[in-house]
Amino acid sequence: MSKEQLSQLDGILRQGRLDTTAGVASVRAAFDAFVSQVPVPPDVLQKPIEIGGVGGIEVTIAGHETDNVMLYFHSGVYVIGSAVATVPLVGDIARRAGVRAVTLDYRLAPEHPYPAAVDDARAAYEGLLGQGVDPGRIVLAGESAGGGLAVAVLLAAREAGLPMPSCLYLLSPYADLTLSGESLVARESLDPILTPEGLRVRAPEYVGGADAADPLISPIFGDLSGLPPMLIQVGSHEILLSDALRLAARAATSDVAVTLDVTPGAPHVFQGFGGVLDEAAAALGRASGFMRTRLGSR
Amino acid sequence: MSKEQLSQLDGILRQGRLDTTAGVASVRAAFDAFVSQVPVPPDVLQKPIEIGGVGGIEVTIAGHETDNVMLYFHSGVYVIGSAVATVPLVGDIARRAGVRAVTLDYRLAPEHPYPAAVDDARAAYEGLLGQGVDPGRIVLAGESAGGGLAVAVLLAAREAGLPMPSCLYLLSPYADLTLSGESLVARESLDPILTPEGLRVRAPEYVGGADAADPLISPIFGDLSGLPPMLIQVGSHEILLSDALRLAARAATSDVAVTLDVTPGAPHVFQGFGGVLDEAAAALGRASGFMRTRLGSR
Repeated sequence: MSKEQLSQLDGILRQGRLDTTAGVASVRAAFDAFVSQVPVPPDVLQKPIEIGGVGGIEVTIAGHETDNVMLYFHSGVYVIGSAVATVPLVGDIARRAGVRAVTLDYRLAPEHPYPAAVDDARAAYEGLLGQGVDPGRIVLAGESAGGGLAVAVLLAAREAGLPMPSCLYLLSPYADLTLSGESLVARESLDPILTPEGLRVRAPEYVGGADAADPLISPIFGDLSGLPPMLIQVGSHEILLSDALRLAARAATSDVAVTLDVTPGAPHVFQGFGGVLDEAAAALGRASGFMRTRLGSR
Repeated sequence: MSKEQLSQLDGILRQGRLDTTAGVASVRAAFDAFVSQVPVPPDVLQKPIEIGGVGGIEVTIAGHETDNVMLYFHSGVYVIGSAVATVPLVGDIARRAGVRAVTLDYRLAPEHPYPAAVDDARAAYEGLLGQGVDPGRIVLAGESAGGGLAVAVLLAAREAGLPMPSCLYLLSPYADLTLSGESLVARESLDPILTPEGLRVRAPEYVGGADAADPLISPIFGDLSGLPPMLIQVGSHEILLSDALRLAARAATSDVAVTLDVTPGAPHVFQGFGGVLDEAAAALGRASGFMRTRLGSR
């Protein structure tokens, strides 16, 4: 039934597609209205927290004790999105992988261009370490821009001599803000969520006066050596498919343990559509196995 | 200890490196002498068989009953290698994945250039189907040239309207006989087994008068749509790394379910060094999980 599910979801997404070229305030409001419709199961507990001076939400599963922590970065091309929007998916991952999660409200552009997001993400990671959390019990994860950010913050952490976490889990990472991926054009008609024009409008707001090819902005151009095992999941109906492919290639040539996991016909961050798409649960199951193998037990 | 294992293995392989630019008879004899040293566990049973008119070896595990079949294609740049050389690794996979295996002695170049190997592989696949084996219980697998061949035969099978098997498992596939991969040069000093020169000498013997960019010779140039879920495993210390990366990318843009699984620091078809390398067992464990999920049970 999954071909049918994919086709139905495609139609729904196209109808509700956000105009990401609109003004910042209006696109943020439309996004928040869209994601607020997603229900949160009653055993998913949320608590506002501050970590390393940065705000976020701690997400735990009632009755589940664990010493493993996932630090999660939301999507939204560095301009929209929020920690609260990720709670349904983060709760799902936390339950499956056996982690407590911190989903971060890093600062957004255009008010706060690069390097604000990287600085906040790194401060939060250092905050976790400062609390005495064993880096071997930490997974960094992120969706779309948050996926690119998860890699960027580890490049910054590596340069600063900080210990690496156990692993990285990236959902449809946005990892090339020079927008040079061939899928941007080749997959445009297949992608029911993102548009090249939306990225073109928003990317300069984050890049600001910096170089878009800086690895801390576009990690596909970085030397990724020393990074921990990395799982990259992506749908094949995404204009960001090339970002995932090139990030995986870059990790491989940097001698990093990388797994690229492509779900055919699936849209951007399809793991968030668990209620209507069998592929979402299947992908989250594989991701949980990946994280459980690498995180310390309990 | 795995860093140490990888480094020791690298040294051993460099010492015993085959000169694949030598005459056909001498390189075949050296290869056969090398692989005959690998012991076969006593519960791995071998039986010479013919399938679709092509010779091979059936490999089963004593006491293990199963309806699942792996059709396996050996390595050797289409010029050297043999079914018998694969028995230790094929036995290991058969035990882990719960399959009986047929490892095929397809015809070799230069005596039999393209399309002999593809014809033989397809005849064997049709032979399995003709015996009434459910295609959903078949996995096609191959190492190096055999990995490229496994993809090529499915492109031919698709054109012929044959049913697809349940999945594909490719170990360090050799999938670009135009030799255009950037790793051919970029990874040369890291690869303790293969050399660009060896490939340059041998590739024309298989390609013969055909076009090396023909997808049945170099599947990275093909439209892979319609192919079943594909697991590609590769080491990062391989001149064929680019073949794996580009085959995965091609599968993704063909809307095929593909998993690329890169083991850092590992050499060509490292899964064959299970006795001395923890990464080999780990990779075979992941591959077995992949096959078991997709093959029918029992």
